[in-house]
Amino acid sequence: MSAQRDYAALVQRDLSLDLTRGKPSPRQLDLSDAMLGLPTSHLTAAGVDARNYGDLQGLPELRALFAPLIQVPAGQIVVGGNSSLTLMHDTVVHALLSTLPGGERRWVEEPQLTFLCPVPGYDRHFTICERLGITMVAVPMTADGPDMDVVERLVATDPTVKGIWCVPKYSNPSGIVYSDETVRRLAAMPTAAPDFRVFWDNAYAVHHLTDTPAELADLLALCAEHGNPDRAFVYASTSKVTFAGSGVSFFGSSPANVQWFLANTSKQSIGPDKINQLRHVEFLRDAEGVAAHMRKHAELIGPKFELVDKVLTERLGDLATWTSPKGGYFISLEVPHAREVVARAKAAGIALTPAGATHPYGDDPADRTIRIAPTYPDLDELEQAIEGLAVCVRLVAEELGA
Amino acid sequence: MSAQRDYAALVQRDLSLDLTRGKPSPRQLDLSDAMLGLPTSHLTAAGVDARNYGDLQGLPELRALFAPLIQVPAGQIVVGGNSSLTLMHDTVVHALLSTLPGGERRWVEEPQLTFLCPVPGYDRHFTICERLGITMVAVPMTADGPDMDVVERLVATDPTVKGIWCVPKYSNPSGIVYSDETVRRLAAMPTAAPDFRVFWDNAYAVHHLTDTPAELADLLALCAEHGNPDRAFVYASTSKVTFAGSGVSFFGSSPANVQWFLANTSKQSIGPDKINQLRHVEFLRDAEGVAAHMRKHAELIGPKFELVDKVLTERLGDLATWTSPKGGYFISLEVPHAREVVARAKAAGIALTPAGATHPYGDDPADRTIRIAPTYPDLDELEQAIEGLAVCVRLVAEELGA
Repeated sequence: MSAQRDYAALVQRDLSLDLTRGKPSPRQLDLSDAMLGLPTSHLTAAGVDARNYGDLQGLPELRALFAPLIQVPAGQIVVGGNSSLTLMHDTVVHALLSTLPGGERRWVEEPQLTFLCPVPGYDRHFTICERLGITMVAVPMTADGPDMDVVERLVATDPTVKGIWCVPKYSNPSGIVYSDETVRRLAAMPTAAPDFRVFWDNAYAVHHLTDTPAELADLLALCAEHGNPDRAFVYASTSKVTFAGSGVSFFGSSPANVQWFLANTSKQSIGPDKINQLRHVEFLRDAEGVAAHMRKHAELIGPKFELVDKVLTERLGDLATWTSPKGGYFISLEVPHAREVVARAKAAGIALTPAGATHPYGDDPADRTIRIAPTYPDLDELEQAIEGLAVCVRLVAEELGA
Repeated sequence: MSAQRDYAALVQRDLSLDLTRGKPSPRQLDLSDAMLGLPTSHLTAAGVDARNYGDLQGLPELRALFAPLIQVPAGQIVVGGNSSLTLMHDTVVHALLSTLPGGERRWVEEPQLTFLCPVPGYDRHFTICERLGITMVAVPMTADGPDMDVVERLVATDPTVKGIWCVPKYSNPSGIVYSDETVRRLAAMPTAAPDFRVFWDNAYAVHHLTDTPAELADLLALCAEHGNPDRAFVYASTSKVTFAGSGVSFFGSSPANVQWFLANTSKQSIGPDKINQLRHVEFLRDAEGVAAHMRKHAELIGPKFELVDKVLTERLGDLATWTSPKGGYFISLEVPHAREVVARAKAAGIALTPAGATHPYGDDPADRTIRIAPTYPDLDELEQAIEGLAVCVRLVAEELGA
């Protein structure tokens, strides 16, 4: 009955801790404070006045800076506003209302639309599908990415399958990196829908926690190589590089898709915030500047990931399993009765992402996955939160069985 | 034959002048250069860290600052990104994909959608309709705004009419200000569609050229007063207040519409660029700060409007008519054979907005309206351009008849 005693003590401490969202901590944001005084000039490399309208595709120098980091040629990158989620949402909306290259009709004219959702996955991807009436089908994740046998079978046989959501590097929430073979199969597989797309949310492209960065195969190049040049929609952003709310976002794809995308966004905007683009170029400078900046992030959040791993190892042992990512923002914890664990934690003042959020429709059939977001709290708060969470896991296992 | 001689001389001068778009001049942009070093703090008035995610509706202090200027209560304003055009486009998209308050179904499920377009009007409004498959019906403008007899008849009898585009103050391109009676009738008129909306693009709300600012009736309040609280969608931005490409935009409406709007945008974004919002608050400070800043703009562009008026008066006399706006960014010139005039001007190195752009589908049936955008060139270039344009008008009148 020690878990019950520990839980009673936990509740008495009247904590108020939040592990819900993948937010950078204030100290991480401090790393970019020099940006508040930038740019020092309003002129772009080409001498264009960045203060005025125009340049829908974004500054060439910013596209060139991020091209190698997100594996998209600079000419095939479009720089968006402060949110890659907006780019993803809007791409789906554009596809609903404007026929994709290779497509036969607008998606809104299809009787049914289906997206594959590797699970555990990112809840905001699922929310876009729910809002826009797209049916979601869960696909299990393996250590190499989505189970490609399942994916290949579904896309080959079902023409309503128009997309798959992927966070290929340091995946949200498991931290898994897609293997080269997974990426190759995504690029090469035959699909029943002529306008099938891989939504490649490379949110953590440069977000390494170790000195040996994970390598990700080049989806866009592989798609072209395998005769499916228009299959990949690539997304990235600096939301977790510079300021979470004031970064820049990137869309990358084939020339035909980029032309389609710009034809749509040209009706939506006269151009992006080029001053913020200049600010990013001046602050980050080049790929090595980005890498150096990301090492500072790793110094701040690496110890948090280690702490979570240490506490879970000490407190839970065989009661649970969890991932030990080499990058990204999340740890995926697998426990019995996840919903009940999250409820007990909440009652003890520890807010976690709702159990099930990692699955389409908020439904985790095994009721096992809890997403831990360790970056925002400081080390002391994080330790209290994970110790408390461990108490809840043990309590629920004791009450409901493991 | 003096016009032909003048035109030959004009062509020989090999000019390269651009009057196409309503862009602020570099000197206008200089007025806001202090913003490049702002904000000095990342904390909002409420002590929130503006660098991080969140606050979908936008900073309360920025909403409070603009509330009196755009005639929307602060609680009913949403602050968007750098473009009010994006807010307008996205509102139409949201209405297509998500049933409006008072509506019976999503617009995408309607067999036909129609928007009324007062002409001359703003080409980018028309482009949104064309892209999204919305039929446009032109409505003539009077000195008091759209011809309300026509508008009332169309909205009362045709349930496919879902919207009307309005630039109510210093209208694009005529400079007309809607009269109180026009605004009242827009608010009060019965409509066949239960989800009819007035798209109120108040782009030039604070953009006065004289010391006696035009007053605009409060559409949102009048709609509520007349039992149509959800009728008005209000838009504004600082694109022509601070930096054209790096301003902030505003959406304002009834509480029900704002809730609907935020429910949709919450799937699209985790929040706006709050650092840019803080930057605007710190730079503009309050309503009087905005007014003082706009007087500096007027000092720079007022003489340009006067110059155009002077040259047209001297050179064209009875051959043409044109507006003399008290604010905004455009002058509307009415000439015989507008298309031919624009073509001759182009051949002489003077770029004008295409004739017809002020009308839906680029079709000005009378072939009369030319939009003049005098703000960007300096005075000397502007004088050359308008002198040249006058030569073209006289030439074409001589060749084709007035």
